[in-house]
Amino acid sequence: MRATVMHKAHDVTIETVPDAVIQQPTDAIIRVTRACICGSDLWPYNGGPNVEGQRMGHEAIGVVEDIGSGVERIRRGQVVIMPFADSDGTCLFCEEGLQTACVHVDFFGNGKLEGAQAEALRIPLADGTLYPLNVGEDDALMPALLTLSDVMGTGHHAAVTARVRPGGTAAVVGDGAVGLCGVIAAKRLGAEQIIIMGRHPDRIALAKEFGATDVVSERGEEGVARVRELTGGFGVQSVLECVGTEQAMDTSMSIVRPGGAVGRVGVPHYEAIKGAQQMFYGNVIVAGGPAPTRAYIDELLPDVMDGVIEPGRVFDRTIGLDGVPDGYRAMNEREALKVMIKP
Amino acid sequence: MRATVMHKAHDVTIETVPDAVIQQPTDAIIRVTRACICGSDLWPYNGGPNVEGQRMGHEAIGVVEDIGSGVERIRRGQVVIMPFADSDGTCLFCEEGLQTACVHVDFFGNGKLEGAQAEALRIPLADGTLYPLNVGEDDALMPALLTLSDVMGTGHHAAVTARVRPGGTAAVVGDGAVGLCGVIAAKRLGAEQIIIMGRHPDRIALAKEFGATDVVSERGEEGVARVRELTGGFGVQSVLECVGTEQAMDTSMSIVRPGGAVGRVGVPHYEAIKGAQQMFYGNVIVAGGPAPTRAYIDELLPDVMDGVIEPGRVFDRTIGLDGVPDGYRAMNEREALKVMIKP
Repeated sequence: MRATVMHKAHDVTIETVPDAVIQQPTDAIIRVTRACICGSDLWPYNGGPNVEGQRMGHEAIGVVEDIGSGVERIRRGQVVIMPFADSDGTCLFCEEGLQTACVHVDFFGNGKLEGAQAEALRIPLADGTLYPLNVGEDDALMPALLTLSDVMGTGHHAAVTARVRPGGTAAVVGDGAVGLCGVIAAKRLGAEQIIIMGRHPDRIALAKEFGATDVVSERGEEGVARVRELTGGFGVQSVLECVGTEQAMDTSMSIVRPGGAVGRVGVPHYEAIKGAQQMFYGNVIVAGGPAPTRAYIDELLPDVMDGVIEPGRVFDRTIGLDGVPDGYRAMNEREALKVMIKP
Repeated sequence: MRATVMHKAHDVTIETVPDAVIQQPTDAIIRVTRACICGSDLWPYNGGPNVEGQRMGHEAIGVVEDIGSGVERIRRGQVVIMPFADSDGTCLFCEEGLQTACVHVDFFGNGKLEGAQAEALRIPLADGTLYPLNVGEDDALMPALLTLSDVMGTGHHAAVTARVRPGGTAAVVGDGAVGLCGVIAAKRLGAEQIIIMGRHPDRIALAKEFGATDVVSERGEEGVARVRELTGGFGVQSVLECVGTEQAMDTSMSIVRPGGAVGRVGVPHYEAIKGAQQMFYGNVIVAGGPAPTRAYIDELLPDVMDGVIEPGRVFDRTIGLDGVPDGYRAMNEREALKVMIKP
């Protein structure tokens, strides 16, 4: 089968690799019908550690082709969402809705999924991991449904951990696809003021359609000052940190108001959270992490099916597998917002 | 009148100072009937910054002696609790229950209260700040009621911000008076397992009476390993950080389990929170700060009045004003747990 392999910075190729096969009784094999490129894929694309030979992609929808002898809930032929973290659905963390901490998976170690930017994929712990859908594999809602594997769930997690509340104030740091889904989530949870911090005109335009009420294009201290101006000098109750750089985190900590919360979903590229005293005296909460998107599908799916939210609009380019290398380039150069793959 | 003045490290004296008088129409004057020495008073006692001439004490119960022309709710003769932070009770933060961020007070700057370890005290914004009681000034419950000005409210804040839940697991870092009140609060909020981390036998004994189920006397890595042993290897859901040193915070971050929360109430003596990545991948929440004790009195007072909780037991010594210098010494040398003052 064909799959996406990262060799080194800016060197990503489509190659023939061994077919995905059942290895454990709890595995399933899906034929990937939709996948996509994530902003976090750009970290290895730009030279992040341990990329050599890495199979890429962690967001997919597919059709179940085969199941292991121990799979009880998932059936062949089902159209399924594959959340980016596999989980068995039975451990104490899964039961609390924190599937990213499933004790039966070493998600961030050896047990991680193989790449979803491929023709097919082995899914460990299929009963817990996969979410079956009642739609055809080419349903018009596929782009929106695909976002439930990661990006929409991640934006939602930012909003939840930043404690967005009805009538509240929120700021979204970052205008990438996660940030834009953060806007959708903040609006959906009832925020009255939603400030998007970003500077790409097309993304800002989409953010406004998703519900952003204010735009701050300045960065650093100027950006902080502008957010304070927009919030009576206090800052916002909820900050959705959707970038992961130290500067984005510094900005987040500077625009949150006393008693407010910063929900981090950008993969952090810093070692410490500065301002521990200011954070303390302001009773500021810092939360967030990898989104338990598996847990959020129950809540978000009805709004996707009803068209109440349209996160599929973050995809502005669709390609086949052969187009993947250029898709990485286009996202890296901010030519494309988010690229969908039809293998 | 007589009051406590800190001159420099280990040099605290009782002196005659100008009588407390109404300065603003919203002021009240209370005759202090009970005050106490706080663990945080030991930071300046041990050479913290800006201590020269500082009037000490921020916890008191008193009788209202005089009120300004603008005071409407508080009346002369009332017995009142003075929470450690003054607040007007009307601003947006007060209305949210975060009186420590009252926009009409610069609590941590020039607007701070004068010292409560004194015969009398001017209370700014008396209508918002003071909490009237329906008891006599020498009621047997005075020690417990006095803790509602700070230490019990602060322990409760640690438990609330650490998200202690019914049936949950909690660890209390620090066996000082705040830590012990944290044990009371964790028990009151339903935690099933409460690990106290400390090494003073008398305090540990009291912690057990308050509801601690396990004791960890080891520190650093050994202490972390011991907590993990006690929690199936996972760590606890709720960590109440009641010390404020970097080591205590490091320990807190190392014993919290994925999806758990660290509630900080120890005044932080560090600049950054380390382990930003581990915290992220575990979806760990860090929260806490100065407790809005004013907000918590409504909730805690009934349990104090009914004897359901007995936070007054943290006082193991009662002195007059003349005994204050020795009281500081005794608390600093861990000879006394918490010292009550009857001026």
